[in-house]
Amino acid sequence: MRPLENIKILDLTRVLAGPFCTMILSDLGAEVIKIEMPGTGDDARSFGPFKNGQSLYFLSINREKKSVSLNLKSAKGKSIFKKLIKKVDVIVENYRPGTMEKLGLGYDVLKEINPALIYAATSGYGHTGPKSTKASYDILAQAMGGIMSITGWPGSPPTRVGMSLGDITASLYAAIGILAALYQRKATGLGQKVDVAMLDCQVSLLENAITRYQVEGKLPEPLGNRHAGITPFQAFRASDGYFVIAAGNDSLWKKLCQAIGREDLIAHEKFATNPLRTQNIEIIEAELQSTLGQKTVDEWVAIIDDAGVPTGPINTIDRVMCDDQIIARNMIVDVEDKRAGTIKIAGNPIKMDSVPEIPTRSAAPEIGEHNQEILKSLLDLSDTEIAQLLNLGVI
Amino acid sequence: MRPLENIKILDLTRVLAGPFCTMILSDLGAEVIKIEMPGTGDDARSFGPFKNGQSLYFLSINREKKSVSLNLKSAKGKSIFKKLIKKVDVIVENYRPGTMEKLGLGYDVLKEINPALIYAATSGYGHTGPKSTKASYDILAQAMGGIMSITGWPGSPPTRVGMSLGDITASLYAAIGILAALYQRKATGLGQKVDVAMLDCQVSLLENAITRYQVEGKLPEPLGNRHAGITPFQAFRASDGYFVIAAGNDSLWKKLCQAIGREDLIAHEKFATNPLRTQNIEIIEAELQSTLGQKTVDEWVAIIDDAGVPTGPINTIDRVMCDDQIIARNMIVDVEDKRAGTIKIAGNPIKMDSVPEIPTRSAAPEIGEHNQEILKSLLDLSDTEIAQLLNLGVI
Repeated sequence: MRPLENIKILDLTRVLAGPFCTMILSDLGAEVIKIEMPGTGDDARSFGPFKNGQSLYFLSINREKKSVSLNLKSAKGKSIFKKLIKKVDVIVENYRPGTMEKLGLGYDVLKEINPALIYAATSGYGHTGPKSTKASYDILAQAMGGIMSITGWPGSPPTRVGMSLGDITASLYAAIGILAALYQRKATGLGQKVDVAMLDCQVSLLENAITRYQVEGKLPEPLGNRHAGITPFQAFRASDGYFVIAAGNDSLWKKLCQAIGREDLIAHEKFATNPLRTQNIEIIEAELQSTLGQKTVDEWVAIIDDAGVPTGPINTIDRVMCDDQIIARNMIVDVEDKRAGTIKIAGNPIKMDSVPEIPTRSAAPEIGEHNQEILKSLLDLSDTEIAQLLNLGVI
Repeated sequence: MRPLENIKILDLTRVLAGPFCTMILSDLGAEVIKIEMPGTGDDARSFGPFKNGQSLYFLSINREKKSVSLNLKSAKGKSIFKKLIKKVDVIVENYRPGTMEKLGLGYDVLKEINPALIYAATSGYGHTGPKSTKASYDILAQAMGGIMSITGWPGSPPTRVGMSLGDITASLYAAIGILAALYQRKATGLGQKVDVAMLDCQVSLLENAITRYQVEGKLPEPLGNRHAGITPFQAFRASDGYFVIAAGNDSLWKKLCQAIGREDLIAHEKFATNPLRTQNIEIIEAELQSTLGQKTVDEWVAIIDDAGVPTGPINTIDRVMCDDQIIARNMIVDVEDKRAGTIKIAGNPIKMDSVPEIPTRSAAPEIGEHNQEILKSLLDLSDTEIAQLLNLGVI
């Protein structure tokens, strides 16, 4: 049995930060019930890429979830929602702060209905502070949180991380908060609110940049593909592309020099220690590059790996999808979708004894696909009542 | 009371992926006991930046933890370790797979001693698969997991994300796995193994790149600071630096054009919809840039924000540390260290009712600082016995 097998989650989230969070909890066994606006649904349903009219953006982060259509702006919709709140363990939303309160469905209202409810929200700026109610998107979090100022190349414009780091980090922290609240509820019987901001999460990721600035008084800047304090620990250009070498200490440095036939560098006084190597990085780069340009990526990776020095290719997405280790770890799995057919998506990276590997996942739901199932099983509604709700546009 | 107030964690981790994971659990209330090699301790103690001989790299991710020195290669050290295993809930390690087995302290051995133990491991490639036992570092995970192939600028060399995304994402997923296992243990009474690989985590972050490749048959490439499917959603150059605009839909696009005095762009047929704007991004960039270069970052952010369009500065680290929202959310907190004095580090981004904000955190421990406290309270050792262990070099 998976860890969250008996947990029910009402999922009001749209686009990425929220849906990615509930996908993780779904992989751990929770039943995730998406609440979607009748007709339109999750905004991400209209985001490309598309296949046969199906949004693969939506499909890749909403697999295995259920969908109930419900208009939360209507009085009947609100009333049904409040009844559902009594039946679930967790609600997750990623509206702009204040939206749930305007709907009359804020945490203060919901916890009266179900004191054991865990209410988790992800937002751009969080539910407190002077910028709280402003709209935000991933790129604002990446910009204001500092990561763009330290990613990219010296002298180039600020660079965005090539995926939505702002959203997805908030998803991960929100999942941690929800699980901690579930654990605590076993002792107290009570739920609580979990409030995760994209901007806060970006700050938490800055690693040593904050302390480096305090000690050196110099603003941390982008370093291309180098490490701030370890050398050589970066990409090099082989004859047919780039690959990386991570020689994190003196012993690995010596092994690297031997492996590539550059024993002459070992005795060089400017390269004797890691701090010296970092100080003289331009010279080291030029010396290593002059040798490393002479063979292919595969040749160098084999030679350097044989010497016990960490190295690897810079995989493009096609190579990621067929890397033997990634395949062996079930990190590329199939989803069977009625419209799009078989699509490959990322698997679950949390390998636990109680979470079986599933090579094929069921598809993401259509809007309202589980209206009958959920409204009957959780609220005991009849076919007639459900038909009426449909006629009224409530579901 | 914090969610994990009664949880004890034996922390065998070094450097980043492991220590960042146990820091999160410590923030949630767990007692984290670092087990360190006598004399040398966590490798990160020798990583810069330094202040008065104290590693701020180490300090920033080991605040509030306890330290017990213990030589796990000695028979007496192993015996003490096994006794400690009976007294704790979780063990976290980030050794290369196979190391704990070589020490005779693999999960199979430890679970016999304490069947309720949760054993969590983070590693480069994971505990299964053909590359499992190879050494890895952050940059290998970023390279082989695909993120470097989609970060940076078209035509530039592959770019590393400016922080250790490989390590820290593994920390977050491991924390999720540990919490799920703790939750499940409440029902089963049994622990389990949690196995998280940096490489797997990188694959999970690729977002829509995997499905884009399947639909378009074209390898996703770096896009600088643009979004793959939304326009304008990127950085622009003001007269004194860069800032970002995220106009995610038609209504925001119109508001943006009005706000910056470029109503002429609204009627332009090539810019009528988001797909058209993305298709014609070069023209849009040039048009907007010609206007946006005429005022400062602060002026544009004020004007565009007033119009209700998401916008923000690209904060360098100094600005991150004094941003009013980041300060209001307690995301920059002080640590008081005996040697380094007061140092500012990132706070806890999981805001929960049961986790009080702590503006000042206690420092990271010295090696073996809590030998007396832990060995007495958990194992009932006497002063004489502890002195003997010290003489023998076991602690």
